[in-house]
Amino acid sequence: MSTIQVKTVSAEYPVHVGSGLLANLYEKLPKQRRFFVLTSPEIWGLWSKQFLASFPKDERPMTLFLPPGERHKRLTQVERLAAELSSVGADRSSLLIAFGGGIVGDLGGFLAAIYMRGIDYVQVPSTLLAQVDSSVGGKTGVNLVTGKNLIGSFHHPLAVYADIDLLQTLPDRELRAGLFESIKAGIIRDAELFEFMERNTGAILRRETEALEHVIGASIRMKADVVGMDERESGLRMILNFGHTLGHAIEAVTGYRRLLHGEAVGWGMIGALYLAQTRRTVSAEEAIRMNRLIHVMEALPRFKTSAEKLVEAAGHDKKNRTGVRRFILPAGIGNAKVVEDVTDAELLEAANWVLESARI
Amino acid sequence: MSTIQVKTVSAEYPVHVGSGLLANLYEKLPKQRRFFVLTSPEIWGLWSKQFLASFPKDERPMTLFLPPGERHKRLTQVERLAAELSSVGADRSSLLIAFGGGIVGDLGGFLAAIYMRGIDYVQVPSTLLAQVDSSVGGKTGVNLVTGKNLIGSFHHPLAVYADIDLLQTLPDRELRAGLFESIKAGIIRDAELFEFMERNTGAILRRETEALEHVIGASIRMKADVVGMDERESGLRMILNFGHTLGHAIEAVTGYRRLLHGEAVGWGMIGALYLAQTRRTVSAEEAIRMNRLIHVMEALPRFKTSAEKLVEAAGHDKKNRTGVRRFILPAGIGNAKVVEDVTDAELLEAANWVLESARI
Repeated sequence: MSTIQVKTVSAEYPVHVGSGLLANLYEKLPKQRRFFVLTSPEIWGLWSKQFLASFPKDERPMTLFLPPGERHKRLTQVERLAAELSSVGADRSSLLIAFGGGIVGDLGGFLAAIYMRGIDYVQVPSTLLAQVDSSVGGKTGVNLVTGKNLIGSFHHPLAVYADIDLLQTLPDRELRAGLFESIKAGIIRDAELFEFMERNTGAILRRETEALEHVIGASIRMKADVVGMDERESGLRMILNFGHTLGHAIEAVTGYRRLLHGEAVGWGMIGALYLAQTRRTVSAEEAIRMNRLIHVMEALPRFKTSAEKLVEAAGHDKKNRTGVRRFILPAGIGNAKVVEDVTDAELLEAANWVLESARI
Repeated sequence: MSTIQVKTVSAEYPVHVGSGLLANLYEKLPKQRRFFVLTSPEIWGLWSKQFLASFPKDERPMTLFLPPGERHKRLTQVERLAAELSSVGADRSSLLIAFGGGIVGDLGGFLAAIYMRGIDYVQVPSTLLAQVDSSVGGKTGVNLVTGKNLIGSFHHPLAVYADIDLLQTLPDRELRAGLFESIKAGIIRDAELFEFMERNTGAILRRETEALEHVIGASIRMKADVVGMDERESGLRMILNFGHTLGHAIEAVTGYRRLLHGEAVGWGMIGALYLAQTRRTVSAEEAIRMNRLIHVMEALPRFKTSAEKLVEAAGHDKKNRTGVRRFILPAGIGNAKVVEDVTDAELLEAANWVLESARI
């Protein structure tokens, strides 16, 4: 097991990564609290026995369920869950455990942020994406009909327990989709992680504990590092959006149904790499290595749309303040920079490149 | 005009109190922002001309409306308003102006707290209650079906503009209801304010500017003082709940329809005063003065319920952690203390006293 300490201006908490963490969960939690666990019916069906194993019978958490799917990541579910908490007497000292994938983590964290103006919570992420991405950084929230994550709060958990064993029941596609965030971590800030993934692709895809622990630990360390320096995304934190401008646009135009978030980011990185190559912020050889690692992880799902639609959707990306499109370009392997002068024409070209690749 | 500087651990901002503030509103706002104003149809009908007078034509705020009434202080309205903001392209640098009573302020502040994980806002409170109470302290939020203000955030405004002129169109009953919060301020922490209100009852009820400015300024100063020392209500801030244990219970059992919040707090203070007298934390003479000031402001609306129901409803008050009922008792005029040993029997007696008074 390894522990990464996240330190930001507003909070400090540990992220534990390893095998067998569920078995000792109760001992790690603060005492004298009422526990509530928010989870999905599927995860609970697979893991409730192991999850509850460490709890004394009279301190078992009450279970709240969030139906699966992005379409339930909405305020109406937050309201229902808050009313459930309130009707069973949850108070300001209650502790919420968000046990599931990114949607459970984001919505659970937001529920904890606004129930009685804020209660404590811990994260037990059950997908690779949630372990490496959404469990660190304090961003919580839900979607509006007009866009993803447009409602939310910064609210850090007391601790994160990323149990690698949970990944054994993860569908193949979700495992692979999560790996794109680790590839992203390698490209923008950690050349060693990038090279580890190049050398150990087989072990990672076979879900070998040691390889996964290394990849997840390094990805979390990278994100903790960046968030620690820039919690509110005024500068450095923006590099975490590498692949996200076009990625979000692809998700939006495909109605959030065809691709998983990680897959869309995979395509987004391919588009950004194209731009990086034309601007020569990466060498041809570096671009080949990055593209190869992205493609080796998975045959990315195909999709159809027009480049114009993608550029228009990218214009609505909430990361862009009026008039300025911030775009993240890799600068070699393990380094990235924020540029503000990407024109619509360039973006159109990158979108066309992605679409050509996506049609093959 | 007077300005009170609110200083808490997490924020610092000015509260301006005086006449004619609307006329210069635009000059006081930060520039280079898109402005949005959240208001009620009624307030906008009365005051939009004055509100907009200082804005250049091309910088006029876009208007968002919240229907009047406590029943609209819910997440569904927050979601609708957030979607409206998003659909017209409001971004993280947009500024929301909450222009209205306590509901507009609480809901508007919460909307600002969670739209894109937090945007700036300013308060322009239009009722006495909102000016003296809800505009200071950073508490924002909405109701659940299971209780009031159970969903929310701490989110401080950039500034508050309490324009006394707005009180000229306030219905009599609302003016009087708001005065109970000022009486509360006097009782728990400001003997000078209490005595000023005793001496100037007529001028206050006639809405003379000078008298109102004094009362409002002193009330805000008291609250800013308390919140500055204890933002998150771990200790001192609890004294602000004087009158609120029974007050909330009365609101709850009467379905939030029969009494205004200030009126319920008025009755709650009468109940707490009864307890203070039996426990001798106030002298008989002090109790008479306090009761007289409460009653002189208004013939409080009557209501019917049982003392048992009130005690049960008080048990659900969110300010009580499991097992402990914190209760605020005045200790003389201008001083209050938190006690934790009020029994159900004592509370029942106080509730009976309130009910006897309310039935007269």
